[in-house]
Amino acid sequence: MSEPRYDVIAIGNAIVDVMAPCQDELIEELGLNRGGMTLVDAARAEQLYAAMGPAKEISGGSAANTLAGMAALGAQCGFIGQVAEDQLGAVFAHDIRAVGVDFDTPARAGNPPTARCLIFVTPDGERTMNTFLGASQFLPPTALKEKVIASAAILYLEGYLWDPEEPRRAMRRAIEVAREAGRKVAFTASESFVIDRHGDDFRALMAEGKIDILFVNEHELASLTGQSDFEAGVAQVAAQVPVLVATRSAAGAIAIAHGERAEVAAEPVERVVDTTGAGDLFAAGFLTGHARGESLERCLAMGAICAAEIISHYGARPEADLAALVEDRLG
Amino acid sequence: MSEPRYDVIAIGNAIVDVMAPCQDELIEELGLNRGGMTLVDAARAEQLYAAMGPAKEISGGSAANTLAGMAALGAQCGFIGQVAEDQLGAVFAHDIRAVGVDFDTPARAGNPPTARCLIFVTPDGERTMNTFLGASQFLPPTALKEKVIASAAILYLEGYLWDPEEPRRAMRRAIEVAREAGRKVAFTASESFVIDRHGDDFRALMAEGKIDILFVNEHELASLTGQSDFEAGVAQVAAQVPVLVATRSAAGAIAIAHGERAEVAAEPVERVVDTTGAGDLFAAGFLTGHARGESLERCLAMGAICAAEIISHYGARPEADLAALVEDRLG
Repeated sequence: MSEPRYDVIAIGNAIVDVMAPCQDELIEELGLNRGGMTLVDAARAEQLYAAMGPAKEISGGSAANTLAGMAALGAQCGFIGQVAEDQLGAVFAHDIRAVGVDFDTPARAGNPPTARCLIFVTPDGERTMNTFLGASQFLPPTALKEKVIASAAILYLEGYLWDPEEPRRAMRRAIEVAREAGRKVAFTASESFVIDRHGDDFRALMAEGKIDILFVNEHELASLTGQSDFEAGVAQVAAQVPVLVATRSAAGAIAIAHGERAEVAAEPVERVVDTTGAGDLFAAGFLTGHARGESLERCLAMGAICAAEIISHYGARPEADLAALVEDRLG
Repeated sequence: MSEPRYDVIAIGNAIVDVMAPCQDELIEELGLNRGGMTLVDAARAEQLYAAMGPAKEISGGSAANTLAGMAALGAQCGFIGQVAEDQLGAVFAHDIRAVGVDFDTPARAGNPPTARCLIFVTPDGERTMNTFLGASQFLPPTALKEKVIASAAILYLEGYLWDPEEPRRAMRRAIEVAREAGRKVAFTASESFVIDRHGDDFRALMAEGKIDILFVNEHELASLTGQSDFEAGVAQVAAQVPVLVATRSAAGAIAIAHGERAEVAAEPVERVVDTTGAGDLFAAGFLTGHARGESLERCLAMGAICAAEIISHYGARPEADLAALVEDRLG
């Protein structure tokens, strides 16, 4: 097995976030799933956009956000995801390349347009996401560069993208490629609804030993295990994946790796402005530490620092110098 | 003369700002005009975008920013400007309508795309703007709704748009329509290079008594009058326009209206994050006060408060509740 060329190759949605602050009443008025992620069709996306205040466009996508964080921490990263040949596609491609992530999945001609996520941010900083998947859901298995996947220490997969059929096939193939090359497979569960719809797939992958690192939050853990008790859920999954990272928002996070357990408190934040990307950036910090062979405590602490940075401002891409933040806090 | 339906109708560039922080070295490396606005063609825009860090897209355009501020202060506003039929055009249209500004100039099919302004923001908060005018420069005189212009107390014109030929013809026509309807014409000089190229036009308009309210900064004033001394320039122009507003960045601003003079200091700001839109929002505060018949001092103070809000965050569209800020500070 040759030395890996990349620390991580990720497959995920290629999305531009369209973000606006809003009052709590609007969430109710529009019948949104407060704090969650809901898939919407083009008509509903138009309707929600029309109801939205003045917005900012900032590149997003769960795994892409994670890579932006990892690149900022110095990791070598490549992204695979599908944009359309349009202006938002160009924005997505620019922003991820500009942080030093390799991205060369060819843009897809014609309709649908590049994915966008309409994010309503309430005064408490909570984000309510409405995703129009657009081109993103048409990522074909042919978009995979198998040699590149085989050259990465970790293959990182975004659960959101397990839902549409074509990317799911691409990701299944990517898992095979990574495992044949002796690489690790990391998975983020993304959202409870993904587990509700595809939990059997995930449980089978775990049972087959195909997931080396799993990221879940407490809700996803409950959906995955059927256990309402956090610790019971942790014990159940930890028996099946070598590295489990379970986040609990303001209550911090725990990790269990090969039987060793560590915990971290949430990093204090002056004001939670926008929680979009908190989990993505937690994963960025943790995975970067893990790729470097850091202690489990330090991996968790890096995750908490990155998550704290992202929720202190609008948007899910880091603004501060994450490497400097980690250095300041952890030495 | 009937009661005006609008406080202001503005004609300006319909632009989406593409903004990224950058280090001072990059400004030199790219040969940018630090602190200024430079028109760029499509090839240069591509080159600069490729050199730019991860960016945010936020609607901009000088006069459009002013209207966004005025609408936030409760003024009735309409905007006339040219976008293309593309995603950035839809973003621009959404954002200006979402703040309550009427905007129904039909999007233009085909090339070029919607205008964008690549804005590099250095650590001191100074913005260096590179504008690809795209569709904006093809605003045709037929886009004017003359009845609407005649129904607005003030016609507000953006000097930037005086440069391309087709919008200049449209603006000349709009001035005639406004004056025939007995309305006021307000002009912002926008940038010294506009004065350098079209100073004769502006001096002729002033001499003919066609400009009722003029906004300039000290550099534009010097270009317009040939006077390097600020007070000498002020005296020269004040003799020709009923209301003159001259801004001096951190040194505050002065206004002379019908012989009366008032001054305002710059509003203190905790940290200057991004100066983009400072002049636009100063104009928003001043014009809103002026439209309400407020004292000259209060008009200036409203301008200073709005400018301070805009430079305290990224982007040239207000984020805080401007009406509440004015109420808090001025009662």
